[in-house]
Amino acid sequence: MKVGILTSGGDAPGINATIRGVGKTAINNYGMQIIGIQNGFSGLLYKDIVELTDQSLSGILNMGGTILGTAREKVFRKMITSPDEKDREQIKNAYNELGLDCLVCIGGNGTQRTTWMLSELGLNAVGIPKTIDNDVYGTDVTFGFDTAVNIATDAIDRLHSTASSHRRVMVIELMGHHAGWITLHAGMAGGADIILLPELGYNMKVVIDKINQRMEMGKAYSIVAVAEGVEVPTKERPATYFAREIESQTGYETRETVLGYIQRGGSPSPYDRNLGTLLGGHAAELIHEGKFGRMVAKIGSEITAVPLSDVAGKLRLVTPDNQLVLQGKRMGISFGIW
Amino acid sequence: MKVGILTSGGDAPGINATIRGVGKTAINNYGMQIIGIQNGFSGLLYKDIVELTDQSLSGILNMGGTILGTAREKVFRKMITSPDEKDREQIKNAYNELGLDCLVCIGGNGTQRTTWMLSELGLNAVGIPKTIDNDVYGTDVTFGFDTAVNIATDAIDRLHSTASSHRRVMVIELMGHHAGWITLHAGMAGGADIILLPELGYNMKVVIDKINQRMEMGKAYSIVAVAEGVEVPTKERPATYFAREIESQTGYETRETVLGYIQRGGSPSPYDRNLGTLLGGHAAELIHEGKFGRMVAKIGSEITAVPLSDVAGKLRLVTPDNQLVLQGKRMGISFGIW
Amino acid sequence: MKVGILTSGGDAPGINATIRGVGKTAINNYGMQIIGIQNGFSGLLYKDIVELTDQSLSGILNMGGTILGTAREKVFRKMITSPDEKDREQIKNAYNELGLDCLVCIGGNGTQRTTWMLSELGLNAVGIPKTIDNDVYGTDVTFGFDTAVNIATDAIDRLHSTASSHRRVMVIELMGHHAGWITLHAGMAGGADIILLPELGYNMKVVIDKINQRMEMGKAYSIVAVAEGVEVPTKERPATYFAREIESQTGYETRETVLGYIQRGGSPSPYDRNLGTLLGGHAAELIHEGKFGRMVAKIGSEITAVPLSDVAGKLRLVTPDNQLVLQGKRMGISFGIW
Amino acid sequence: MKVGILTSGGDAPGINATIRGVGKTAINNYGMQIIGIQNGFSGLLYKDIVELTDQSLSGILNMGGTILGTAREKVFRKMITSPDEKDREQIKNAYNELGLDCLVCIGGNGTQRTTWMLSELGLNAVGIPKTIDNDVYGTDVTFGFDTAVNIATDAIDRLHSTASSHRRVMVIELMGHHAGWITLHAGMAGGADIILLPELGYNMKVVIDKINQRMEMGKAYSIVAVAEGVEVPTKERPATYFAREIESQTGYETRETVLGYIQRGGSPSPYDRNLGTLLGGHAAELIHEGKFGRMVAKIGSEITAVPLSDVAGKLRLVTPDNQLVLQGKRMGISFGIW
Repeated sequence: MKVGILTSGGDAPGINATIRGVGKTAINNYGMQIIGIQNGFSGLLYKDIVELTDQSLSGILNMGGTILGTAREKVFRKMITSPDEKDREQIKNAYNELGLDCLVCIGGNGTQRTTWMLSELGLNAVGIPKTIDNDVYGTDVTFGFDTAVNIATDAIDRLHSTASSHRRVMVIELMGHHAGWITLHAGMAGGADIILLPELGYNMKVVIDKINQRMEMGKAYSIVAVAEGVEVPTKERPATYFAREIESQTGYETRETVLGYIQRGGSPSPYDRNLGTLLGGHAAELIHEGKFGRMVAKIGSEITAVPLSDVAGKLRLVTPDNQLVLQGKRMGISFGIW
Repeated sequence: MKVGILTSGGDAPGINATIRGVGKTAINNYGMQIIGIQNGFSGLLYKDIVELTDQSLSGILNMGGTILGTAREKVFRKMITSPDEKDREQIKNAYNELGLDCLVCIGGNGTQRTTWMLSELGLNAVGIPKTIDNDVYGTDVTFGFDTAVNIATDAIDRLHSTASSHRRVMVIELMGHHAGWITLHAGMAGGADIILLPELGYNMKVVIDKINQRMEMGKAYSIVAVAEGVEVPTKERPATYFAREIESQTGYETRETVLGYIQRGGSPSPYDRNLGTLLGGHAAELIHEGKFGRMVAKIGSEITAVPLSDVAGKLRLVTPDNQLVLQGKRMGISFGIW
Repeated sequence: MKVGILTSGGDAPGINATIRGVGKTAINNYGMQIIGIQNGFSGLLYKDIVELTDQSLSGILNMGGTILGTAREKVFRKMITSPDEKDREQIKNAYNELGLDCLVCIGGNGTQRTTWMLSELGLNAVGIPKTIDNDVYGTDVTFGFDTAVNIATDAIDRLHSTASSHRRVMVIELMGHHAGWITLHAGMAGGADIILLPELGYNMKVVIDKINQRMEMGKAYSIVAVAEGVEVPTKERPATYFAREIESQTGYETRETVLGYIQRGGSPSPYDRNLGTLLGGHAAELIHEGKFGRMVAKIGSEITAVPLSDVAGKLRLVTPDNQLVLQGKRMGISFGIW
Repeated sequence: MKVGILTSGGDAPGINATIRGVGKTAINNYGMQIIGIQNGFSGLLYKDIVELTDQSLSGILNMGGTILGTAREKVFRKMITSPDEKDREQIKNAYNELGLDCLVCIGGNGTQRTTWMLSELGLNAVGIPKTIDNDVYGTDVTFGFDTAVNIATDAIDRLHSTASSHRRVMVIELMGHHAGWITLHAGMAGGADIILLPELGYNMKVVIDKINQRMEMGKAYSIVAVAEGVEVPTKERPATYFAREIESQTGYETRETVLGYIQRGGSPSPYDRNLGTLLGGHAAELIHEGKFGRMVAKIGSEITAVPLSDVAGKLRLVTPDNQLVLQGKRMGISFGIW
């Protein structure tokens, strides 16, 4: 069997572990041939490929980024998201001309939707969820998330010393456009006092009261963790908006930090390496068993798969009854609405 | 309500997050009084206590070790593990003289057995599992494990550069007397070529053949991860035994590393901080609801509790059908028996 | 002798190691009494003090921030920077009422100027240089700098994986208002392609040409490190300005990261701990020998001291003939002017 | 000009930064041709070479190990250390057959001696000092040392939590056969209470008294850092010997850790990357200027060079008047003799 692999969308620590997991399993255990398709779906259409061997897959387990390159698919967005008859023909032709028996697509929600579309076109496709944001529907966790939470928590740890030395409020903005998973987990792990998530919204009075209350209790400083996707009434970044409002409404010196791209870079955590390895290996098994049109997933402790038709186009969001939210609330952490 | 907390057995990153999780939830949400009992069960008998307040529980979330101290309970081992009538009386008296309504015991398998014994004596007791080894029965994971795997994987990452520069075999011994969880997870995440676990045993010929086969394939070096609990025929440490045997049987230069105590020290990973916080919080809830005689646990994605009677005295071990073992095998990693 | 210590200005990793170095040496070796003055010079005037003992100085060596608190001295700025006769009287009185035989001031350039002023008032004062920016005149290096460079380099390392996966230009803004030391050292260590420093300025054409030239050579991405103090013609942050200009002038996707406060937080590097320990110890020696009016310094490999009158009010800046600049230039790294 | 580079002896973080520093400077600035000689001096004799280009030198700055491989030169030891006429002829022939105009040798004391010997044979040779042990004579510091100190200090930091939780003595053995630099710097930075160096020896009574005195002062634990080169009267490793003796003579529970090979692996610290870059660049300059028979060095703040004849065969050791030793002593840290 000849299997193609591509990575699409933003990069995430653990992609290379996943490519290695698919490839080494497919090659060593099932004798398949593995073709790396470069730079996402455009590489499929341009036939921008490289053969992946056991040798070329060695030594990449702990590397950040993706050896295949990736693309936020601007050029092909229309073709990929709402293809007409001609687009479909072109995609099928590319798949057939490469002689593929299956295509493995590693990516976030957009990529899973495209993978489903390929599947609907009659192509053999398997999806592997990937995003640091952890918002892919159908799996409890995606690789890249643990690493991003580690980096974000380390940053909050560092802010504690400055905040406490200067008796300041520190606002840190973390990644997550739609979902606040990174902010929730890093905020809780980093000991943030106020955690603001896109899913929960906020009431500025609650935020201000919490800060004033802490200062009145003699706590010398406060840490606010806010997701980049929290909507604010100005054109500012959330960190800038909240820092300005807090300083102006409380009178306490307030500083902002926007952590940015470093959250998605660097060597994956051991957890993400093993998750990528397991998901990649399971994709190879699905292919061996001829089970296409699915996305591999971790649900509870199990590595399994779900139909792409069930998950494509849906987001996995933090809900108010999330156990970490509830636990934070019980400990007196503010989520901006309580 | 007046709740005592103690920590017993070897230290593990995340104990302080857990104490904070119990205490802050109990104080802020339920208005309980929290008493820290120092140095394990001996502190109970000696009434070596300290009041824990919201203030004293602040700033400990990311600290390694335990603010309460711990003890491998040598002096009281007999009293704790097989108490006679007089011992029982003494334990009950200590509990009553401290005016406790409940005792929370944070510890490994031995501690959970003792917690169950206390429960059988009619005391209100709740157990919280803790061990870097991850071998507490009844929970999928214990805090300290993720941190230990991070440290161990980082060490294996470092050995790669020396191993490859010198074309050597490197043997690294990791913690785990009964269970090979750390070695399995760090071995897989660190790209070890041979992973040896107490649960699976080993066949030296398989080990030697694997190393020779790699060298013949042109792979310039090999990494062997071995758990400290793997039985060897000499009085040597496993790392020493395997390094000596491998060098003598293959002729390749081989070096050993015993990672030791650094695996259980330092700041807990964000995962372990949040796990400790959730388990601690759930213990406070159980106490509030009057549900004693249980150990809090993480099963799948759920924070829950199991009866101490079901779990005490049992170990959670790696089995040959573990999904990470099976996946490693499919990728060509040797587990010493295949 | 009774010695006061205070910390003033922005915090820097290694302050606590330095306080410990002064205190443990003074107490153990010279039998002095040590008074911690809290929150900078304002604590001197308000007599906000705490006794420091061998016991209270234990366990702080690896802690970030400052156990004494610090202040950007707004309230007292006038009194401190241009005191009139009444201010002078008040400062002298505070010093005398505390019964001090010497005051040790840990801080940056502003603090050293104030320390000199105290000395001119006839008080016994010793300065210890502290800033992550490394721009204190009279010493080759200040503690906090090595840690900041480590954090900044780690961030650049992480950007490489995103930049290479997406074939992007990444612009990272690092701390340094007047001096580009962090940007120079982290840029060189992180493999930046263009390094922009306040001291050297820049020519936008040189920057754009360098990026175009790299892309034409087949290099898939470029990293630009820019100090926050580089002047730009708009009101934007330098990172925003350069990212916008580069994207618009080259057509390559460009992203910005502003690393911010995490550069000054967290546990000091071993280098900074030892530097703080040595400088602190030397300050204790100077006091013992009655050598006041000086700032301790590291010059070459030597721990020594310089007269405050020689250094106060001067900045240590990167010069075009700095050996790291010259070496970068020889390797083809652009400094924005070549 | 055609320049060969080889690395010999144990690996050290920063070798690749150094190779890149030589190569990129030589290629970009001086138009030289660079030949990588693989696996040390044996690669010279076997003509095991690879061309190094600007492209092949990209992306290696932060990599541990050496892209050229290295060897503890067993086979050629006699030829290298005491060559007879025939050996000399063979070495000269290899150099000439490769058409080299200069050979750059990156290595420790043994390598510098060999480099001098090559120079005496009339070959154009330049040495670059490399060892994590920091014991190369003629330079204040070698790359690899800062990284090793970072790793060792991190390990000591981790031991603190276990030691304090269990009220134990922890003995940690660090690298350094002849020189105790790593143990001195990491011991001081990690807050060790007793630091034992090969250069200073020890008096067991001093060690025991120090531990007893600490316990009597109410300090709950002690940390002992010992270099692997400290001579002990048994065949045990120093860590094992001291742990056994301390436990038996004081009665306090004592545990040992031997940190081992992880001290020389992994990504170099920013300091070591820049040091390697500067030393490598200076080697390229020396070659350009025709200044052979020298070893590049860092002395004080200057990157410079020293004649191989002055340094070869000599060791740089810790002396009792080292400023970090003296400072530790003043703070009450024991060095085993006081």
